[in-house]
Amino acid sequence: MARIVMKFGGTSVANIERIQNVARHVKREVDAGHEVAVVVSAMSGVTNQLVAWCREAMPSYDHREYDAVVASGEQVTSGLLAIALHNLGIDARSYQGWQIALKTDSTHGSARIAEVEGEQIVAGMKKGQVAVIAGFQGVSPDGRISTLGRGGSDTSAVAVAAGVHADRCDIYTDVDGVYTTDPRIVPKARRLDRVAFEEMLEMASLGAKVLQVRSVELAMVHNVRVFVRSSFDAPDAPQVGVGNLPPGTLICDEDEIVEQQVVTGIAYSKDEAQVTLRGVQDKPGVAASLFGPLAEANINVDMIVQNISDDGTTDLTFTVPVADYDHAMALLKSLEKKIGYTKLDGAKDVVKVSVVGIGMRSHAGVAAKAFAALAERGINIRLIATSEIKISVLIDDAYTELAVRTLHSVYGLDQV
Amino acid sequence: MARIVMKFGGTSVANIERIQNVARHVKREVDAGHEVAVVVSAMSGVTNQLVAWCREAMPSYDHREYDAVVASGEQVTSGLLAIALHNLGIDARSYQGWQIALKTDSTHGSARIAEVEGEQIVAGMKKGQVAVIAGFQGVSPDGRISTLGRGGSDTSAVAVAAGVHADRCDIYTDVDGVYTTDPRIVPKARRLDRVAFEEMLEMASLGAKVLQVRSVELAMVHNVRVFVRSSFDAPDAPQVGVGNLPPGTLICDEDEIVEQQVVTGIAYSKDEAQVTLRGVQDKPGVAASLFGPLAEANINVDMIVQNISDDGTTDLTFTVPVADYDHAMALLKSLEKKIGYTKLDGAKDVVKVSVVGIGMRSHAGVAAKAFAALAERGINIRLIATSEIKISVLIDDAYTELAVRTLHSVYGLDQV
Repeated sequence: MARIVMKFGGTSVANIERIQNVARHVKREVDAGHEVAVVVSAMSGVTNQLVAWCREAMPSYDHREYDAVVASGEQVTSGLLAIALHNLGIDARSYQGWQIALKTDSTHGSARIAEVEGEQIVAGMKKGQVAVIAGFQGVSPDGRISTLGRGGSDTSAVAVAAGVHADRCDIYTDVDGVYTTDPRIVPKARRLDRVAFEEMLEMASLGAKVLQVRSVELAMVHNVRVFVRSSFDAPDAPQVGVGNLPPGTLICDEDEIVEQQVVTGIAYSKDEAQVTLRGVQDKPGVAASLFGPLAEANINVDMIVQNISDDGTTDLTFTVPVADYDHAMALLKSLEKKIGYTKLDGAKDVVKVSVVGIGMRSHAGVAAKAFAALAERGINIRLIATSEIKISVLIDDAYTELAVRTLHSVYGLDQV
Repeated sequence: MARIVMKFGGTSVANIERIQNVARHVKREVDAGHEVAVVVSAMSGVTNQLVAWCREAMPSYDHREYDAVVASGEQVTSGLLAIALHNLGIDARSYQGWQIALKTDSTHGSARIAEVEGEQIVAGMKKGQVAVIAGFQGVSPDGRISTLGRGGSDTSAVAVAAGVHADRCDIYTDVDGVYTTDPRIVPKARRLDRVAFEEMLEMASLGAKVLQVRSVELAMVHNVRVFVRSSFDAPDAPQVGVGNLPPGTLICDEDEIVEQQVVTGIAYSKDEAQVTLRGVQDKPGVAASLFGPLAEANINVDMIVQNISDDGTTDLTFTVPVADYDHAMALLKSLEKKIGYTKLDGAKDVVKVSVVGIGMRSHAGVAAKAFAALAERGINIRLIATSEIKISVLIDDAYTELAVRTLHSVYGLDQV
């Protein structure tokens, strides 16, 4: 017997028929003797409609009111799933964010979770009652409805799992797990049985869309085992995966991963644009004069590379999200005199390809292997950035598939 | 300066454009220096969709979950109207039932209001902030969302008005006030400037659809002055009615009505069916053996007439709602032996026409006048029931218009 939190997204609850299918998934776990809490998103399309109404009422709407409007979507689904569970003879009740209580800060529209009170839910679960929780929402310090922003329901689910000390948080998605890389690019990509939190965090930040970065961060902090599995599987499909788990990928502490590979996966992100400033005066404060205004303009700078100068000037290269590229370039142009550079360059047709693996920490030569393999294929590296457990390179996006396939094969990730 | 609660129904908030129109109505009152709280229904059609989803999930759904689902409709409107008010430069914030708190009993689906905490709203209003309150909903003793059932938003508005000690509760409807009778039947019907609570209660129970009976009861108990006015008036239309009020009808304590008429209005209800049992044994307990089972079957019995018997048997006639007629007849048939009657009769083609007026209390001959006038037109009276302030007669429904017009004229209600 385990205590399990199950999370279903908008497409899984898009209509009553699908909600009834979700109820059957829940019933399977209840019948297996587990204590179950379910976190649900709004029916797909509903949130967009609600957001559109807010904008129509006032383009610069108050985020507190936006939260009251938008949180209603998950409220509906939570009640409907509770009813669908009753229909299968399962004891269940819905909880809104304020009822749990899932307490957040007061950053309405993208609130951060402060605390989840799990007592009432646990008491219910112990009596065999399934808690059906409206995802994406909580209650702010002054008692108003708050929402968690993008990917909020995943984050709710992990927070609830932490609050009730669940053995596992099952995230039902449109993929059946986390793969070594994007299977659309590399058909030989393998589903990973287990991934360490840190690796998943890097892969999520680097463009693997399975889970929101925030939910992985939270899982890592509270050591919540997150299990990614397919929402398309029939509720009565065989539940046989690896190590007593159904088919899917477990995201867990690295200690739980017995045979750690050097490299776990290859991620890529096309949401990068490169900006280069040439002939920048190499003096104290120049980086601040550049990155300060970008931060103020809410432009997120990712990879940053500065070379040693030999003539009192230096070249500075960094990446920004593609959507912010034009804004960043205009801003830097306006700061030309203040910063002092000779030339402003940039490119949008770039991609960031990353090699991720906790095993890298204890293995030398992992980066060298990547550079050699890319060079062999004639792929020019524009930028390099590394961390303890990842190597990222920025290259021309025409080489995306080639680079990903090459690295996937070089590190022995291809399925045999 | 006054403290005003304004209530808008589903058609008034059916889309963003109409919500913006409601915001302009609110702005007019704010600009006039009033303290304002607004109670809103769900956008029209939304509640029906939510109810349909509950039924689809399980025909005999749990009313607690139904409440969580259905209350979301008003939540959306409250947030959207707050945003629309901000757009006009007005300080406003939304409140859900649990935030006020509007406390109810635990009769989910048709909860009764126990208490409204007005402090927070009043504090906001005193600072010039408009409270936008989700109608139709409250919070049950165990902290779950409850809804008030049919006509709930009117009742919410009156309860909020009582809680904040409002000077007036303005109900915006699709008619511009309460009329002496249905203007579709009597073009000479006049809008009443003022109606006493008791009269409005009778008229609402008797089929005048302007306000739900519950909201009038609550207004009477808490002495909340309810003002019925048109939601179709342009927000900037002249606000000149009678006695410092805009055009509309004030429902208030009879003490506020200086020139009380003997008869205030003529109401009629086609939602009546007649049931007659002939040859009933006239012995103790016979009424109980009849009305007990009807009550258990949730059939609401209205007018009841029993004549003195002269041969040990009596005839018993009463009315039930048309929708329950077949059910009632079948039930009585099955109880034939137990009750002991010789014949079961009934009719659905009947109408109840009522003369209502507080002035009747102190005037003799009001009933006689009605009977004489109807007799003169050849209208046969099937049943008579009277109270202190009303006279109701049951007649063939073919005579509805003739009877209403005749009585309207006889009591001097026709517009000159």
